[in-house]
Amino acid sequence: MYGRYTQDLGTFAKDEAARLRLQEGDTPRPRRPSELLEYTQGRCAPCRVCALQCQRFLISKVGEDWVFLILLGLVMALVSWAMDFAIATCLQAQKWMYGGLDTNVLLQYMAWVTYPTVLITFSAGFTQILAPQAVGSGIPEMKTILRGVVLKEYLTLKTFVAKVIGLTCALGSGMPLGKEGPFVHIASMCAALLSRFLSLFGGFYENEARNIEMLAAACAVGVGCCFAAPIGGVLFSIEVTSTFFAVRNYWRGFFAATFSAFIFRVLAVWNKDEETITALFKTRFRLDFPFDLQELPAFAVIGIASGFGGALFVYLNRKIVQFMRRQKTINRFLMKKRLLFPALVTLIISTLTFPPGFGQFMAGQLTQKDTLVTLFDNQTWAKQGISDEFEYLGILEAWHHPRSNVFITLVVFILMKFWMSALATTIPVPCGAFMPVFVIGAAFGRLVGESMAAWFPDGIHTDSNIYRIVPGGYAVVGAAALSGAVTHTVSTAVIVFELTGQISHILPVMIAVILANAVAQSLQPSLYDSIIRIKKLPYLPELGWGHHEKYNVRVEDIMVRDIRYVTLNCKYRDLQQVLHSTKMKNLPLVESAESMILLGSIERTQVGALLNSQLSPQRRLLTLRQKVLPEDGHRLSDSSIRFQISTETSSGTPARPALRKPLKPALKRVPSSPADSPPVGSPDHTGIALKSLFCANAATEPTEAQGTAYHKAKRVRISIVEEMILGDKMTPAEILEWEEQQLDQLVDFSSAKIDPAPFQLVEHTSLHKTHTIFSLLGLDHAFVTSIGRLVGMVSLKELRKAIEGSLTGKGVKVRPPLASFRDSTASTTEADTTALRQLWDRHQHHHMPREAGPGGEDDDDTNK
Amino acid sequence: MYGRYTQDLGTFAKDEAARLRLQEGDTPRPRRPSELLEYTQGRCAPCRVCALQCQRFLISKVGEDWVFLILLGLVMALVSWAMDFAIATCLQAQKWMYGGLDTNVLLQYMAWVTYPTVLITFSAGFTQILAPQAVGSGIPEMKTILRGVVLKEYLTLKTFVAKVIGLTCALGSGMPLGKEGPFVHIASMCAALLSRFLSLFGGFYENEARNIEMLAAACAVGVGCCFAAPIGGVLFSIEVTSTFFAVRNYWRGFFAATFSAFIFRVLAVWNKDEETITALFKTRFRLDFPFDLQELPAFAVIGIASGFGGALFVYLNRKIVQFMRRQKTINRFLMKKRLLFPALVTLIISTLTFPPGFGQFMAGQLTQKDTLVTLFDNQTWAKQGISDEFEYLGILEAWHHPRSNVFITLVVFILMKFWMSALATTIPVPCGAFMPVFVIGAAFGRLVGESMAAWFPDGIHTDSNIYRIVPGGYAVVGAAALSGAVTHTVSTAVIVFELTGQISHILPVMIAVILANAVAQSLQPSLYDSIIRIKKLPYLPELGWGHHEKYNVRVEDIMVRDIRYVTLNCKYRDLQQVLHSTKMKNLPLVESAESMILLGSIERTQVGALLNSQLSPQRRLLTLRQKVLPEDGHRLSDSSIRFQISTETSSGTPARPALRKPLKPALKRVPSSPADSPPVGSPDHTGIALKSLFCANAATEPTEAQGTAYHKAKRVRISIVEEMILGDKMTPAEILEWEEQQLDQLVDFSSAKIDPAPFQLVEHTSLHKTHTIFSLLGLDHAFVTSIGRLVGMVSLKELRKAIEGSLTGKGVKVRPPLASFRDSTASTTEADTTALRQLWDRHQHHHMPREAGPGGEDDDDTNK
Repeated sequence: MYGRYTQDLGTFAKDEAARLRLQEGDTPRPRRPSELLEYTQGRCAPCRVCALQCQRFLISKVGEDWVFLILLGLVMALVSWAMDFAIATCLQAQKWMYGGLDTNVLLQYMAWVTYPTVLITFSAGFTQILAPQAVGSGIPEMKTILRGVVLKEYLTLKTFVAKVIGLTCALGSGMPLGKEGPFVHIASMCAALLSRFLSLFGGFYENEARNIEMLAAACAVGVGCCFAAPIGGVLFSIEVTSTFFAVRNYWRGFFAATFSAFIFRVLAVWNKDEETITALFKTRFRLDFPFDLQELPAFAVIGIASGFGGALFVYLNRKIVQFMRRQKTINRFLMKKRLLFPALVTLIISTLTFPPGFGQFMAGQLTQKDTLVTLFDNQTWAKQGISDEFEYLGILEAWHHPRSNVFITLVVFILMKFWMSALATTIPVPCGAFMPVFVIGAAFGRLVGESMAAWFPDGIHTDSNIYRIVPGGYAVVGAAALSGAVTHTVSTAVIVFELTGQISHILPVMIAVILANAVAQSLQPSLYDSIIRIKKLPYLPELGWGHHEKYNVRVEDIMVRDIRYVTLNCKYRDLQQVLHSTKMKNLPLVESAESMILLGSIERTQVGALLNSQLSPQRRLLTLRQKVLPEDGHRLSDSSIRFQISTETSSGTPARPALRKPLKPALKRVPSSPADSPPVGSPDHTGIALKSLFCANAATEPTEAQGTAYHKAKRVRISIVEEMILGDKMTPAEILEWEEQQLDQLVDFSSAKIDPAPFQLVEHTSLHKTHTIFSLLGLDHAFVTSIGRLVGMVSLKELRKAIEGSLTGKGVKVRPPLASFRDSTASTTEADTTALRQLWDRHQHHHMPREAGPGGEDDDDTNK
Repeated sequence: MYGRYTQDLGTFAKDEAARLRLQEGDTPRPRRPSELLEYTQGRCAPCRVCALQCQRFLISKVGEDWVFLILLGLVMALVSWAMDFAIATCLQAQKWMYGGLDTNVLLQYMAWVTYPTVLITFSAGFTQILAPQAVGSGIPEMKTILRGVVLKEYLTLKTFVAKVIGLTCALGSGMPLGKEGPFVHIASMCAALLSRFLSLFGGFYENEARNIEMLAAACAVGVGCCFAAPIGGVLFSIEVTSTFFAVRNYWRGFFAATFSAFIFRVLAVWNKDEETITALFKTRFRLDFPFDLQELPAFAVIGIASGFGGALFVYLNRKIVQFMRRQKTINRFLMKKRLLFPALVTLIISTLTFPPGFGQFMAGQLTQKDTLVTLFDNQTWAKQGISDEFEYLGILEAWHHPRSNVFITLVVFILMKFWMSALATTIPVPCGAFMPVFVIGAAFGRLVGESMAAWFPDGIHTDSNIYRIVPGGYAVVGAAALSGAVTHTVSTAVIVFELTGQISHILPVMIAVILANAVAQSLQPSLYDSIIRIKKLPYLPELGWGHHEKYNVRVEDIMVRDIRYVTLNCKYRDLQQVLHSTKMKNLPLVESAESMILLGSIERTQVGALLNSQLSPQRRLLTLRQKVLPEDGHRLSDSSIRFQISTETSSGTPARPALRKPLKPALKRVPSSPADSPPVGSPDHTGIALKSLFCANAATEPTEAQGTAYHKAKRVRISIVEEMILGDKMTPAEILEWEEQQLDQLVDFSSAKIDPAPFQLVEHTSLHKTHTIFSLLGLDHAFVTSIGRLVGMVSLKELRKAIEGSLTGKGVKVRPPLASFRDSTASTTEADTTALRQLWDRHQHHHMPREAGPGGEDDDDTNK
């Protein structure tokens, strides 16, 4: 089972209480010192109490939110800076090796190729061993987590370590990989760990809602400290991870991201890398006339082309993944040698970028950062189409090839990097795709800019002043447009402003980004949504742009009508049947099969627990004890004492063997292991051993994973011991007879945990509205009711199907616009009236006879 | 009654259908031509059909969202540009008058003072007469509207005209007023009008959810085209108007705001005001070393001081409004002469800014725009504290006073403008406070910057290069910080980047804005929230920062327990009692008083309609007809035909006089006039004339305000005519007797509109969660249920009280942290169990006898 949905509103409060109580029961240490201290009568006790109170006051006054966000920003800035430092060192080492071996091309090639291969292989192996969850970008997972799904092991220290080290190695190899996506994940893990750490000092870090808020802020910090772009970071993280954004969280993101970006840049100043705090890729375009109005069509072209390019990138990336998965033979071979695929890909890519080889046509010797610096360069490389007018200095030299011109170099660079990036991001190492795409976009923009500069050597402006075209500005526009198209975000515009430190190209950038988004969104899902689909994460897809028919599909078109339910006056046998006939995790509880009035919902495991407590050996023992002689009862009570002692350690309250039903029902959580779903298939084989095992399993699942195995093992042992003591008292036939008898009893729901207010929808709620509500409240399912009566159920599955359009195939009529409204008005009134009349009639018949003359009433009705 | 809340989920679909149907019934014109054309057999009919289909295809393909947003952006850019042009002309006229009369100071003074007074008085009078809703900023109202509340007349053409003309005059007067808030309102009105206009061509503009989405985009356009700041506009409008923001709306705002800003700036280029598209207040700070790290404390000081200043501004503004309202004598006088207050305020302010008078110490001759341009100036005004080293050129001269230095001028400017702005924004004209505050902030920043420049004449940096301090950068920081503090937004940072066209000061600006927000938010509500409170708009306050106790207040602490309800098997007399005993707008419908199972909710007006149809003269007539002779019935049916003809025009279906209950119950909307609440006080005085009036009123409210008065009048006339025909058949005593008899009948709910799934909460839902849900779904009230049983109700009122902290006074226990969780776990289980047992017992008794041995069961229970 992949994830557990956040429970509905009703269950939430209980669960929280339960968790807290259990945690207090399990780990009372962090709370105890301060509370106990006041009772320890030492000499300096008053001082300590005073100090503690001061500390408490400080904590309560400063506000933990601030403390938390500052700490998070600080830690992330340090991590980001340290990683950048390590990556730069790695890249320098490669350059040094390559430069030192310039006597022999073969040796040079060996060094050039081996170094990244070793690093990538190490990174892949390390993450594979330590935490496979660290692989990839992390943004899709964060999107899912912020949706309310709990993904296992995604926010642990192990994953953190694996991601940081794996990412450093992967980026240090010089492959076209990015650090932005992984940084979102790293920041989130950092927030989760910090939250757990700070909860040692205060109690407010326990709240689930608050943790989600902090995770959202952490995503902003991740982007913010990666690019030193606080505003862009906040916006990008909102666009990428949220469906509905709580504006009250806004300041958190801004605060933490700004602090983080500040520290990140201050570290550079302190390290004497920079003179003062400036942008990461500072540009120096002229301010007074950044671009001409007539250049705008060129920017629009960049936007539209980037849109197509972005969609192509996502498509290519997905196809590569799917190809690798589908090809059984390749796959089997690669699965056996898990590290072969990364090594192979690295080998190919680094061979192609080898500077004396093919790399000379694509500026292969430049690192990603150098490439970006050169692309954003202020000068025009090509004038009049002849490249040799301009002197290439420093790292710009890489773009210059004696036998070709800069246009060819740029085109080759774009084409090669495109597939290389799409391929490299499928390697199972921690890596993002934002930076590679950003670089490709910048190169594309530069290409258009250089072409424009060649076409209009003296600029377009017709007035007295000559304003030359600035190809660097085109590079900025291209970078924002392509990265926006791949990620389906507009905030890449803000990121480029913050990255370059110039906002003069705001309108071209905005126009290009919006056009790129419009094209890309109509062709492909975003890269992150694509990964979500590939990984089959439980996420609700977005409603598309302008899909007006979504307003006309209604819940009744997509809901499941044939659902199993539990009635208030049902027998245990009915419970058993329901359990066997459905796999729903939440069963509706209705008043009776005739009225179908929805009273609440009950979890599947609770039903299982009810059934098991009814058929448990303990109750059988009780029946036995009532039948057999007193001395036998004495012997049994002896065993019960033994039993009591042995369970006491596992839970605070003494367990009574006479009542082995789930202890503290409100404290239980959804056990998500498939073990506690009942054995499907044979309803009669509710055998003894299996059942007792099942019962022990279902009844003793503690809240957290901690200690589960131990408890489970103990319980199983206990129940087996018990079984041995009691089992021989009854023959299997007797047991079966007793069980049959028990199954005919009415269910006593008083010990079950019932969600008293499950979320309800009406049949006529539109798909659009349903989607909104599901996204807003993070729902997993909702019951469809009509005047209190249960008529159906909608779960994420149906909703996803309806949105992805596989609806029409399944017999759902998609109405023409407006027609549905006409239908619905009539049918609504009719259906509701009928339902109401039934209810009313029921009352009339059951409770009291009709008083007033029915003739008049009926007349009314027929007149209508 | 001020506003009508968006209905709950259940009602929404029905209402929408109802509205559409009604609209179709009322105005079938726009739809008819295309549909009818295909049947008109003319010569060019096929061509026309083809053209129409092409048009349809285009509309459906291009996507109306795009068309709509482009049109909106275009219109708003034109409006903004035209207004700017008109305002500039007004201001130039004043300057020209003032300049032309420089021979006589008295004449100069008269001209200086009269001109703004006349303009402001005209503006106040004009808006007062045409649309008083146009007064003020509009952002608070938009915030409320986006929350789902419908404010009457706020989005009409009349208000649009009043706001545009009033705002132009008000800003043309040169008073310290802003155009940003009103522009949000203007853009929203523009969107609403455009939406109504475009609905003539297509059907998709009808959707309420879509309209809200479009309004959100319009707010962004308003800010965007006001400052030519698309990104800042989107962010500011999100922060100011939303609680939860749907990320899928994001692109709409960006698209429309970018297009609008683009057109707005292109118009300036075409008008030869600018050479190319640039920022509105372009700065030219040096790029290579914008600020030193050691200057950051000064920026932090600006932020903190701005925070206090912003809070003071909000406080002052509110106090002025409250003072004006409280002072009965002043108020009475001013209310009589509505235009006196604006004239008086304008007189005082313009007298003080008279350049040859006190104005010379505060740069009084500069317009707001010029002030800002000078404050963002690149040069340092004061060096070494002596102001005369620097030559003040052009408009900079205004800041220079021969007998004082620039520091004094700045201080005087700040102090005077501060109270002037706070006072001026209370004038009842369309005006915002953003720009005045922005200017004051810039002046404050400049003051700090000049002080720093005087303190460190050669800059702080200790290296070889001398980087002088740039006071203009401080002005930018101050402007962002103070406007951020007053509005409680962080996006003012982005706005200043876009306004100045430079992002080099990003970190100082972010730090100052965040600090200013932190200080201001802990002291005062934002200016807009303050206005919301003053105007008592139905808005839910935000949860404060770090109010952790909110997590511990639960619904059961704040809910109303003693609520009136309607049972399924009640009599009409019960309905009457319920109506008289409560003022709730939505009554819960429960199965029976014993079970209290919530089936749905029924609107108060529906209950009234049920009661009235039962007691209506028509039913009396029916009773009569059944008694009296056939020829009498013949005569009556005659009248019924007359009646039928006269109503036919008002609604599509023929009304039957024999059944004067609300026509098409599903088609009805909540009539929001207080007239249709039943007469409170005397339950026996359900007299004839009053009742028929009431009935007619309640039964014939059409969807929109259009035509209501006409219909109402007609219906009343009809019912009076009818009354005259029928009334004399029975004596009042007979009528009373008949009514008493009718009241004892059981209620037939089949004709009433019932919301089948009202929103439900559980007792243990936390206040935090409740607030979230109310904000997310735009709820007005929610029922509190426990396993299907109604136990209470929470409305906005209770929630607002709980959040604003007046809770503790009303007997609510605010628990210590964590304690509540402990309580709840125990009590939950207990209460739930009891309730469940009751239900269960009821079923046991009513439906079937206990089958299994009750001994064992009871044993279980006692053992527990």
